[in-house]
Amino acid sequence: MRLRNKPWAKDKIAAYPNYVIPNPEQYKGKWNEVFGNNHPIHIEIGTGKGQFITGMAKANPHINYIGIELYESVIVSALDKLIENELPNLRLLNVNAKDLPNFFAQGEVERIYLNFSDPWPKKRHEKRRLTYQAFLELYEQVLVDEGEIHFKTDNQGLFEYSLVSFSQYGLVLTYVSLDLHHSDFVGNIMTEYEEKFAAKGNRIYRCEVKYPSKKRCENNEAVSP
Amino acid sequence: MRLRNKPWAKDKIAAYPNYVIPNPEQYKGKWNEVFGNNHPIHIEIGTGKGQFITGMAKANPHINYIGIELYESVIVSALDKLIENELPNLRLLNVNAKDLPNFFAQGEVERIYLNFSDPWPKKRHEKRRLTYQAFLELYEQVLVDEGEIHFKTDNQGLFEYSLVSFSQYGLVLTYVSLDLHHSDFVGNIMTEYEEKFAAKGNRIYRCEVKYPSKKRCENNEAVSP
Repeated sequence: MRLRNKPWAKDKIAAYPNYVIPNPEQYKGKWNEVFGNNHPIHIEIGTGKGQFITGMAKANPHINYIGIELYESVIVSALDKLIENELPNLRLLNVNAKDLPNFFAQGEVERIYLNFSDPWPKKRHEKRRLTYQAFLELYEQVLVDEGEIHFKTDNQGLFEYSLVSFSQYGLVLTYVSLDLHHSDFVGNIMTEYEEKFAAKGNRIYRCEVKYPSKKRCENNEAVSP
Repeated sequence: MRLRNKPWAKDKIAAYPNYVIPNPEQYKGKWNEVFGNNHPIHIEIGTGKGQFITGMAKANPHINYIGIELYESVIVSALDKLIENELPNLRLLNVNAKDLPNFFAQGEVERIYLNFSDPWPKKRHEKRRLTYQAFLELYEQVLVDEGEIHFKTDNQGLFEYSLVSFSQYGLVLTYVSLDLHHSDFVGNIMTEYEEKFAAKGNRIYRCEVKYPSKKRCENNEAVSP
């Protein structure tokens, strides 16, 4: 994403502490208090301008959403959408995904969305890809048992890499589409990127993976009959 | 594949018992005696007209190959190639893959190739797909520990289905290409089908999966750090 310098972004974010939560460390293990209910929490890492997470929050009022975005100049656009829509089940965090376990307790997150993450195509940048093993380990620290990652991208190389990375880590693939916009998948909510890429005729790849149950080795028969 | 009636096929197959092995049950656990060495055994299920397995046998003299094909009218074409090339490391079986454990002992096969298998696109025919759970169980009965399946197809639906089926069974994805002919994969040997489909501009999908080690639950840390 091209980052425009927006010197006013910091101030705007600071003006809406109920939407872009400052010092989210203080809510670790207590996000149900922030939302005022015990609905499941789904997070998006790399929320960008927020079209996806806003659309999801509108469509699913009984899920709580948290959008995480590192760049101030980008998250302000997501903030604008949140101000406009006044969604009680959506919050934003202007933080680095690497610090995820500082913000969420083990088991506090039910699902993670990764949408059109930076592909970092050079092999020497593998560790920066959000589907790299170290990130999968990080996610596991905040997810429920058998928690899910839902991932979509138009980048063939990143999708190939991620399928292998997920599998090597022990995640189980429960859904895959190699051409989402020509599939029978219902209820797809597009990101800003997705609209642009799909309009060019690019394929969108999508998969869902599930962390293995921590109990799986007590019941080995279920894994390998 | 369109099956032509070839009434002479049965007789021709019977005339080459050293190439198309009759009563392969008798060699269960003894295929190294048939080949006269202890090289690893790789099998192809649905060998068709044999271009792939013949090419592989030529390219890899230190691997023993066995091509399995149900239809007499098709396997005769593979037999023709074997007669022409006189490959000591290739045999053919005119049998049904469902009976695999009658022909091979546990651990006798190191790798299974599935190439352009019938996609059986209707949901009610799922059980006929060669990547259906019951087939994966069958393969496990003849493979070595951590044995491999190498799979390619031009059928998007079958590939999507198979990735999920492999993963649900507990297999680990070690390689995936979503466009084999435009990838950096080296040494691809094409089937007759593949040549035709690729010439039309269709994508070829390919993956490699590995059965989990039977010891994996004794060393759980390696699977899920």
